[in-house]
Amino acid sequence: MHFRFTTAGESHGPALVAIVEGLPAGLPVTAAFVDAQLARRMQGYGRGARMQIEQDRIEWMGGVRSGETLGSPVAMRIANRDWANWKDVMDPEGTPGEHRRRQVTRPRPGHADLVGVLKYDRDDARDILERASARETAARVAAGALARRLLEEFGVGIGSHVVSLGGVRAEPPAALPSPLNDAADRSPLRVLDPHAERAMRGRIDEAKAAGDTLGGEVEVVAEGLVPGLGSHVSWDRKLDGRLASLLMSIPAVKGVEIGLGFEAARRPGSAVHDPILPEPVRGASVRIGYDRLTNHAGGLEGGMSTGEPLVVRVAMKPISTLMTPLATVDLGTGQAAAAQSERSDVTAVPAMGVIAEAMVAIVLADAMLEKFGGDSLGELRRNVEGYVAALRARRAGA
Amino acid sequence: MHFRFTTAGESHGPALVAIVEGLPAGLPVTAAFVDAQLARRMQGYGRGARMQIEQDRIEWMGGVRSGETLGSPVAMRIANRDWANWKDVMDPEGTPGEHRRRQVTRPRPGHADLVGVLKYDRDDARDILERASARETAARVAAGALARRLLEEFGVGIGSHVVSLGGVRAEPPAALPSPLNDAADRSPLRVLDPHAERAMRGRIDEAKAAGDTLGGEVEVVAEGLVPGLGSHVSWDRKLDGRLASLLMSIPAVKGVEIGLGFEAARRPGSAVHDPILPEPVRGASVRIGYDRLTNHAGGLEGGMSTGEPLVVRVAMKPISTLMTPLATVDLGTGQAAAAQSERSDVTAVPAMGVIAEAMVAIVLADAMLEKFGGDSLGELRRNVEGYVAALRARRAGA
Amino acid sequence: MHFRFTTAGESHGPALVAIVEGLPAGLPVTAAFVDAQLARRMQGYGRGARMQIEQDRIEWMGGVRSGETLGSPVAMRIANRDWANWKDVMDPEGTPGEHRRRQVTRPRPGHADLVGVLKYDRDDARDILERASARETAARVAAGALARRLLEEFGVGIGSHVVSLGGVRAEPPAALPSPLNDAADRSPLRVLDPHAERAMRGRIDEAKAAGDTLGGEVEVVAEGLVPGLGSHVSWDRKLDGRLASLLMSIPAVKGVEIGLGFEAARRPGSAVHDPILPEPVRGASVRIGYDRLTNHAGGLEGGMSTGEPLVVRVAMKPISTLMTPLATVDLGTGQAAAAQSERSDVTAVPAMGVIAEAMVAIVLADAMLEKFGGDSLGELRRNVEGYVAALRARRAGA
Amino acid sequence: MHFRFTTAGESHGPALVAIVEGLPAGLPVTAAFVDAQLARRMQGYGRGARMQIEQDRIEWMGGVRSGETLGSPVAMRIANRDWANWKDVMDPEGTPGEHRRRQVTRPRPGHADLVGVLKYDRDDARDILERASARETAARVAAGALARRLLEEFGVGIGSHVVSLGGVRAEPPAALPSPLNDAADRSPLRVLDPHAERAMRGRIDEAKAAGDTLGGEVEVVAEGLVPGLGSHVSWDRKLDGRLASLLMSIPAVKGVEIGLGFEAARRPGSAVHDPILPEPVRGASVRIGYDRLTNHAGGLEGGMSTGEPLVVRVAMKPISTLMTPLATVDLGTGQAAAAQSERSDVTAVPAMGVIAEAMVAIVLADAMLEKFGGDSLGELRRNVEGYVAALRARRAGA
Repeated sequence: MHFRFTTAGESHGPALVAIVEGLPAGLPVTAAFVDAQLARRMQGYGRGARMQIEQDRIEWMGGVRSGETLGSPVAMRIANRDWANWKDVMDPEGTPGEHRRRQVTRPRPGHADLVGVLKYDRDDARDILERASARETAARVAAGALARRLLEEFGVGIGSHVVSLGGVRAEPPAALPSPLNDAADRSPLRVLDPHAERAMRGRIDEAKAAGDTLGGEVEVVAEGLVPGLGSHVSWDRKLDGRLASLLMSIPAVKGVEIGLGFEAARRPGSAVHDPILPEPVRGASVRIGYDRLTNHAGGLEGGMSTGEPLVVRVAMKPISTLMTPLATVDLGTGQAAAAQSERSDVTAVPAMGVIAEAMVAIVLADAMLEKFGGDSLGELRRNVEGYVAALRARRAGA
Repeated sequence: MHFRFTTAGESHGPALVAIVEGLPAGLPVTAAFVDAQLARRMQGYGRGARMQIEQDRIEWMGGVRSGETLGSPVAMRIANRDWANWKDVMDPEGTPGEHRRRQVTRPRPGHADLVGVLKYDRDDARDILERASARETAARVAAGALARRLLEEFGVGIGSHVVSLGGVRAEPPAALPSPLNDAADRSPLRVLDPHAERAMRGRIDEAKAAGDTLGGEVEVVAEGLVPGLGSHVSWDRKLDGRLASLLMSIPAVKGVEIGLGFEAARRPGSAVHDPILPEPVRGASVRIGYDRLTNHAGGLEGGMSTGEPLVVRVAMKPISTLMTPLATVDLGTGQAAAAQSERSDVTAVPAMGVIAEAMVAIVLADAMLEKFGGDSLGELRRNVEGYVAALRARRAGA
Repeated sequence: MHFRFTTAGESHGPALVAIVEGLPAGLPVTAAFVDAQLARRMQGYGRGARMQIEQDRIEWMGGVRSGETLGSPVAMRIANRDWANWKDVMDPEGTPGEHRRRQVTRPRPGHADLVGVLKYDRDDARDILERASARETAARVAAGALARRLLEEFGVGIGSHVVSLGGVRAEPPAALPSPLNDAADRSPLRVLDPHAERAMRGRIDEAKAAGDTLGGEVEVVAEGLVPGLGSHVSWDRKLDGRLASLLMSIPAVKGVEIGLGFEAARRPGSAVHDPILPEPVRGASVRIGYDRLTNHAGGLEGGMSTGEPLVVRVAMKPISTLMTPLATVDLGTGQAAAAQSERSDVTAVPAMGVIAEAMVAIVLADAMLEKFGGDSLGELRRNVEGYVAALRARRAGA
Repeated sequence: MHFRFTTAGESHGPALVAIVEGLPAGLPVTAAFVDAQLARRMQGYGRGARMQIEQDRIEWMGGVRSGETLGSPVAMRIANRDWANWKDVMDPEGTPGEHRRRQVTRPRPGHADLVGVLKYDRDDARDILERASARETAARVAAGALARRLLEEFGVGIGSHVVSLGGVRAEPPAALPSPLNDAADRSPLRVLDPHAERAMRGRIDEAKAAGDTLGGEVEVVAEGLVPGLGSHVSWDRKLDGRLASLLMSIPAVKGVEIGLGFEAARRPGSAVHDPILPEPVRGASVRIGYDRLTNHAGGLEGGMSTGEPLVVRVAMKPISTLMTPLATVDLGTGQAAAAQSERSDVTAVPAMGVIAEAMVAIVLADAMLEKFGGDSLGELRRNVEGYVAALRARRAGA
């Protein structure tokens, strides 16, 4: 089985929708659990007024009964709170005339606006940006929350923290706190280095004053994985490619790296690969009776989980909507113009971490279902436990 | 339609196989064209003896007649030249006893060896490493050569060059040569900076002497794309995610970035996004009548091609097989041991560039077929030309 | 590109949901058009009281603005009118205790009840039947309505009629009316033979009196197709297999045949294959300048559309919920029992025809997008017209 | 996980190829086992001379070592024995001039010839028919043989028999022999009714004399399935649709039915659905402690296996190549002509049964992998046995 997810909905349309399939029956879920993830997505110093408007709540449309999944597709609806104000402009069946009021003809560099209207042959970039908007990631986070819920049952925890923002690099502690989010969520920028955080806030304030925007980098860590998720046998089953696919598809993400990442390209092999030890030392891989002194591989070898923490880093470019607008072209006149600007955030890097966690959760849940099958939570648990017991028995017999 | 590709085969088995589907009928292809790409994959200073053994040639098994594709699946077979020497060990139906001669029980850190035997429950890591080997990428390059052939018909050229190796960073010329590979393929390390290349060769010699290995970074550039390949509407149709998926699935790749990549995360938005100009200036996007002064986005906005050159960078860790072996565990005894080592390359970074080109070609061919359909080359051409003409007409009418 | 569709929702849950992706931007759509198809699904002599309760209406949740598709996923919600009465029983987060009131422990033979509770490890067959219910087909019909809308733009019309019900076989006119549904929808049983219809109504009345149920057969016809949809080159691209897949997946369908179908297995080849004529005679395939005297193939040769009408027939078994219940087992006690029975229809064969039309529409829209690509309606039209013009030119040049 | 399979190759090209992925590691396989299935495909009274030429043998190209699968893709090559005689005509890189010798310009009604050349824009129908040929099914049978091998490990047996040929209907024994193929393979027409078989042979002789061809119907039965394969929750996961998809994609198949099939549409519900009994009676479903007196459903309820034998019937039209050719058009002149005819079989219905078995095996293996996961045979076995034990425990506790 696979974890499938589909999203729909425009930023100022009536709602966002997410449908998730593949969860076993009997998984306990609550709207509150999903909403808590949605709330985490809205945090972060440097966000604009919209974040107050959006108090995202899911409404179950299917797949859940009496607090448990049924095995059928789980459908969630997230109402757009601002819909009432946009109804005329975004009305599915209104007259185009009305829509012109908020027509966007001066495409923002860096956004989907220009290429979108060319590809889809539209004369209003709003027809593009409403879907290309990062608002869509709320539906992804809702889907990811269900994946996270499943992984929790198997002791897998996923967290993230901001490692750089606006050019300021954090120095996180050598040993990350666990659970990671207990610490990271306490920081307004989700940074584990108070000193750097202060500098980042300064940068945000400066950028805001200049009408500019900022990007940054986030690190996501998943702990508690069994070894052997993913596969080396075909390109589309390697876990690293699957992670990169979902992470790079997050709006504004321009880079993804695993473990040492780009740094691994600079070191000799003797300083990259993680020696294998016959006895548990750090304890991370204690389940299988082998251990590593380092985890430069970021928990993946041969496209498969090693049992060590999975570590990925994601780079986000600055938001494309600047209050001090960039040069562009007016699609109506063909002349130079200043890009459209709506009120916007200065940075969304902390939020991006939450989205990236969701993407990682989805890939890992997918890989669990692929390896273990299982139509009920009990069946999945039996299959996972049988595998772990066999690994232990094998080690004992070595 | 989509471009589908499947590979099979072990490193020392009888052959590698690639099946490609989705190419329109009537595309001129030759084995020589594919073989030329396979030969490029085998080049590079720092490769071991195996590269001389492998003089890869494809043999058509289906889908091609009289020098043209038929629209049916194209199947290619690449014989493993060394098969005669490995027949006893790798015989599909031989007795296990014979195989023990080359049994691998001391897994190499960094490779699929350990997690593979756990996942697939094998007692010989050779059962894993034979498929996890980078040899599989020969089949990918063959598949990619057909994608490249298709793209050529539409004026799309794909090249690559090494931008860092063993910690030495190249300073390529500000304006890359075009076609890029005419220059890059003349260099034994595929580097566009002779000074850096000399330093890289020094590092390779040192690493070889030390029994160590080296990684590096490659930049791939695709020119001549129409705008609008990929889509912003769903996560799995965004071109950036699709590129990252195939690139990160290349063995030993640990990082992927697009355009400015991680650097974009450090700059303010005003120094990242590429202003849109009403007139052709650099000429890159002349087809649609808009231009950009910069291409920090690397040719992708909103998950779609902008018409500017597509630019991606890929980081490869050092090869996992070291002549000075790393610490590991003997799976038979459970005791500490030195990792198995077979003769191996010091670095494969230049080859990785060729593989990355193939991956980019496949993603772009796929996106072309997705957008334009087309069962014959003529039909595909008519559809592409109709689209480009409509873009021009639209611009003229603005 | 492909036409993708996903549905979710339980029969007595809050709503059904359908998400459709792949429609080009700029396709005119209205909720009224979709609702009209939903209304057709609810018709038919022999339906129970629920059909009055269900006055299905879609609500757009995304993908449509100002009466046109945007190219983004189209999401539709169909509220379950009876939800208020089932809220306690089906509450996503209610207590299980409340649910027991409508617990189903005596599985109905013929339904998913028994195997579903075993597979998904549930103790209430309601957890299964709510999704296995034919109510799900409302979401399919909504998705199919959008496919139908797209096909209309290209002159493709899809209709159906009942050819047998409860063992009574209709004798439809040799030449079917066109458009087929103009005639079929006027009949309460969607039958084109008034005499047979009378007999069918008699059977329905008898079955109702006996607490029994009835099945039947429907024929679906699609006219106006270009030749060359689907492909012979791979098993999963053949149009016949794709049609069979969706049609056989309709609840209660047990048989699918194309053209002569099972009758073709009984005749000699000389009485099965449709001779090709050099001039238009019947006019069906006039677009390409060839014609056929017969259409025993049902519009498909080699897994591709021939340009002749596509003709498929679908057999539906009687509804599994009988008022005179069948023998079963009580899952609680393990003892023999009478199957649960809720108020139900005697037959749903006329409705099944509407559902089958929707499935055919989806397969054909998918095949159009696969062959022609196209992100906007204009682009798709240009590509289709270019192909048809090329076929004509080829014929003229022969 | 899923069972994936890909085929390539033309009828008179160098070879056919099949790649299969998803098989767990450690499955014992031999070429002899696969070849035996290929040999069964070539049997049958009424086959032409080609069947003697084809003595199909697979050659492993990957995925198998020492008589066991490795978990990697399994690639098989079936050389076309007649290739030497066709090399000039089918040479992948020969000159088109040479090919003209066997050019096909008079398309056969009923075959892919005409629509294929239109769709793919070819002037030689050989470019189409070489792939549309039923020869491709050899690759399917090879793939299916591996699926069959997997299912054997779990006690699942698949057989078939011809139930009608050329209009003659067999009366098979009420209780089919088990294993079915032990009996069916002993008959030259794979018929379990000697009287009918004699009549069928007479029809074949008559058809041969008349230059005509014959079709027929086959029934496939799979025994030993666990309940709960497939799923009711989404259209594309229902086992009935998946079976219909692969079966209807077999060349010349025009109808598929499950269990009672079309007959179910004619009976009242009380004579269709299979009552559930609290105790084993016939023993078929003994594993789960429930039984049925009848199996009209053909082993599927709600798109899931019930544990009863899976029963499907498939209708094949007569072969499209008639020695007494049908009327057609010469594509070169545009004038009326007689269809091309090459030496061909009178009927291939017995062979089709073998192919249909392979398709059923693939669907069932896929459903096993989907439900149970499992990377090694041992892991898959543990997961299956855990599920069956849980079903038994549940029944005992009822």
